[in-house]
Amino acid sequence: MSDTTQSNPQDLADIGVVGLAVMGQNLVLNMDDHNIDVAVYNRTTAVTEAFMRDRAEGTRIQASDTLEGLVAQLKAPRTVLLMVQAGRAVDAVIDQLAPLLDEGDLIIDGGNSHYPDTRRREAELKERGLYFMGLGVSGGEEGARHGPSLMPGGQPEAYERVAPMLERIAAKAPNGEPCVGWLGEDGAGHFVKMVHNGIEYGDMQLIAETYDLMKHGLKMGNDAMGDVVKRWNDGPLDSYLIEITGDILHERNAEGETVLDVILDAAGQKGTGRWTAISALEQGVPLTVVEEAVAARSLSAAKDERVHAETILSGPEAGLIEGESEAVLSDLHDALYASKIVSYAQGLALLRDAAAHYEWTLNPGSAAALWRAGCIIRSRFLDDITGAFRETPNLTNLLLAPFFVKALEAAQPGWRRTVARAAEAGIPTPAMSAALSYFDGYRRGRGPANMIQAQRDYFGAHTFQRIDRPQEERFHHDWIDSGGGVTSGGYDA
Amino acid sequence: MSDTTQSNPQDLADIGVVGLAVMGQNLVLNMDDHNIDVAVYNRTTAVTEAFMRDRAEGTRIQASDTLEGLVAQLKAPRTVLLMVQAGRAVDAVIDQLAPLLDEGDLIIDGGNSHYPDTRRREAELKERGLYFMGLGVSGGEEGARHGPSLMPGGQPEAYERVAPMLERIAAKAPNGEPCVGWLGEDGAGHFVKMVHNGIEYGDMQLIAETYDLMKHGLKMGNDAMGDVVKRWNDGPLDSYLIEITGDILHERNAEGETVLDVILDAAGQKGTGRWTAISALEQGVPLTVVEEAVAARSLSAAKDERVHAETILSGPEAGLIEGESEAVLSDLHDALYASKIVSYAQGLALLRDAAAHYEWTLNPGSAAALWRAGCIIRSRFLDDITGAFRETPNLTNLLLAPFFVKALEAAQPGWRRTVARAAEAGIPTPAMSAALSYFDGYRRGRGPANMIQAQRDYFGAHTFQRIDRPQEERFHHDWIDSGGGVTSGGYDA
Repeated sequence: MSDTTQSNPQDLADIGVVGLAVMGQNLVLNMDDHNIDVAVYNRTTAVTEAFMRDRAEGTRIQASDTLEGLVAQLKAPRTVLLMVQAGRAVDAVIDQLAPLLDEGDLIIDGGNSHYPDTRRREAELKERGLYFMGLGVSGGEEGARHGPSLMPGGQPEAYERVAPMLERIAAKAPNGEPCVGWLGEDGAGHFVKMVHNGIEYGDMQLIAETYDLMKHGLKMGNDAMGDVVKRWNDGPLDSYLIEITGDILHERNAEGETVLDVILDAAGQKGTGRWTAISALEQGVPLTVVEEAVAARSLSAAKDERVHAETILSGPEAGLIEGESEAVLSDLHDALYASKIVSYAQGLALLRDAAAHYEWTLNPGSAAALWRAGCIIRSRFLDDITGAFRETPNLTNLLLAPFFVKALEAAQPGWRRTVARAAEAGIPTPAMSAALSYFDGYRRGRGPANMIQAQRDYFGAHTFQRIDRPQEERFHHDWIDSGGGVTSGGYDA
Repeated sequence: MSDTTQSNPQDLADIGVVGLAVMGQNLVLNMDDHNIDVAVYNRTTAVTEAFMRDRAEGTRIQASDTLEGLVAQLKAPRTVLLMVQAGRAVDAVIDQLAPLLDEGDLIIDGGNSHYPDTRRREAELKERGLYFMGLGVSGGEEGARHGPSLMPGGQPEAYERVAPMLERIAAKAPNGEPCVGWLGEDGAGHFVKMVHNGIEYGDMQLIAETYDLMKHGLKMGNDAMGDVVKRWNDGPLDSYLIEITGDILHERNAEGETVLDVILDAAGQKGTGRWTAISALEQGVPLTVVEEAVAARSLSAAKDERVHAETILSGPEAGLIEGESEAVLSDLHDALYASKIVSYAQGLALLRDAAAHYEWTLNPGSAAALWRAGCIIRSRFLDDITGAFRETPNLTNLLLAPFFVKALEAAQPGWRRTVARAAEAGIPTPAMSAALSYFDGYRRGRGPANMIQAQRDYFGAHTFQRIDRPQEERFHHDWIDSGGGVTSGGYDA
């Protein structure tokens, strides 16, 4: 492929990109648009040739048919961006590439890697004198082409070096700020990307519940639902996902069928929502909206079992929500909005905890700021969140920000009515209900967990704290005869 | 310690026990009660000496001050039960013990080991010609002493060998059956023990929510609540946990205070509930009641944050549930019962999935049968579950068993009213709500996940299945201009 290899020493490239699947190609073209000199390499040479002949025609993009050639085309200190499939492929490329680099060079992993892998790779490459950056890239192919949300983690001096490039190719927030910024050490960028995806699961589940309530509770048709959703897009729910939901409700196929109605109610998942929920469990942070969203996808996939269960189990007769439909719709809007606030509060609390857990400089507000544009969850809402964190940089929990305190106060009555109506009507609202329970649990200084501690002390002598003593002190009570005979220590609950 | 070592060849022991913490001591005494000859060893010799002098006085228990001595005291093929702390200690003892044993000897781990460790150890010891059994032991110290619930996994021929011993020391179900039986290969026993603990988290959370609704919704005093709960113990809720809840509500300390009222509302956790939730996420099985229970414990532990939040966030004025309190209490009883049915259905579905996932012979009904007595979740309810599985051995889901179909039908109206009232009153019911949403999602052949698949196909070209085509076929729709520009493949959601 020497015909496509150009290594003119006077125009060494600013960055090398390994991997020319669509995401890689689009990022490269995005860089070229912004006068960044790029050299590319792909393991299958035919892909490189086709790219150079077709999409890269007329650009200043250089190509190489070997990793050695790619490295030779780069300005020192070198920067190489990997756009290869997360998992073993990343390790394989690093193993080949690292020996070709010099101390101080930088490898960036722009794939959807799991953050523990990023932590491991960063530590390994640091020992070899190389910088490593885990870079979350969100926004799909079009985002990559015209402006993605970029979530970089790693050593700050590595970020400083590539910041000017990343800022040029990133999406721009409504106020013009680029949706990129250093998030913290080692795996912080990929952790933030993972939480972004988890939050996306929550958003989609909340919209699905809203759709369900309109369709089965209010017996609305697709076009009527589409109109309502499009109207909502002019308010605080204004977002990419609400916008496409409106499109979807109106969309018909060539046969004139509403596309939505012929789609099977079985949602797939690639695992990033599950990763987020598992991290939350490991860290001991409630992330119940995402957990319910993941569970709802799993339940949806059990289509045959549900079809069978329907013949055996019954619920409320009509499944119809009573009341004026405009008022019910307004309540529904408020339920969706309030639940969404809770979901983001939980996700950002997970980031806050991860910062402490992994000793990252990560700030939840800075992460939210990067999601304002370029990615699937982009929204006016994220602008509001960014504002809340700029007003109160050390905000403990999003629910305590003055803007959202007010929003929740206004939305609360409709939210409660919606959850109550759904319970009575037999329409499942796992995410909305989980959000409301979290809100009601969070805003109470005294909850019912004293009962749980009493039980644990009763059957397992686990001891308890007292409300009138310092939390460091532990007490045990000699409970009366247990009757059942299980009374003492060592039980693991 | 040669004075306590007896190795008279004519009375070799049936089993050796390593580890004389309270659980180990009690199991040994339980065995001795049932004419099982036991030899014991503990790393710290003073513990062995004290045990032999004190609690083991007058028994036929033999002791040794070395592992070699212990092994020499055992009948061949040998059986050694480890009662040491889960984790590294188990590996350390195995490393010392295995070289002393002969092919065909059996090591049993009776600690709370995580099932992946058990799987690893079983495989390693199999290669060395030794049997290994992971044995879940539930019921705390008193259970160990007078009859625990025992959950063995491993090779069936190993179980056959020790079954007569285990059946003698196990708790007995109301119909006289011993609460022990082979559950499946390698880690099956410890997996079942883990799920038992997860279900226990769910039971305790549901009781805490019930307490909260009575206390804050109905403004009942502790004695009145205690009387109600004691009354419930004569019905389908009859269980050890309900029984001790009644005790707890009535209990006063030396100062005349209700003990419950001075206990801090911050629940601890040792991690087995979290393990269960993580396994469910990994396997893709909804286990939302346990997940909410784990999250509620985490939220409870954030006491200071909640106390602060209370000064900022407000909810419904009175928090009072309206209506006749006897009717409300009856609804609450039904909500607790129905939610409990769902929680067990989820837990048993996790076992059913684990059987497929890990290729275990595990049957969920057999696991439930072992929980009928001896353990913390023992109850009349588990007798009913055992009956349901004996009637329909291949039951897909507990919710479909005729007995529980009827029970849910009767409990459903009160359950719905309870969840609705709690939402309106601002009292959190995370587990009850999650249970209801699962029930309503499970019993519907058509849910709203078509919206999620439409969104995923819209922004990520993830494709979808059609309701009118075989599930193997995948379709993609060219959605109208996305407006936002994110339209195609490779996005990871």
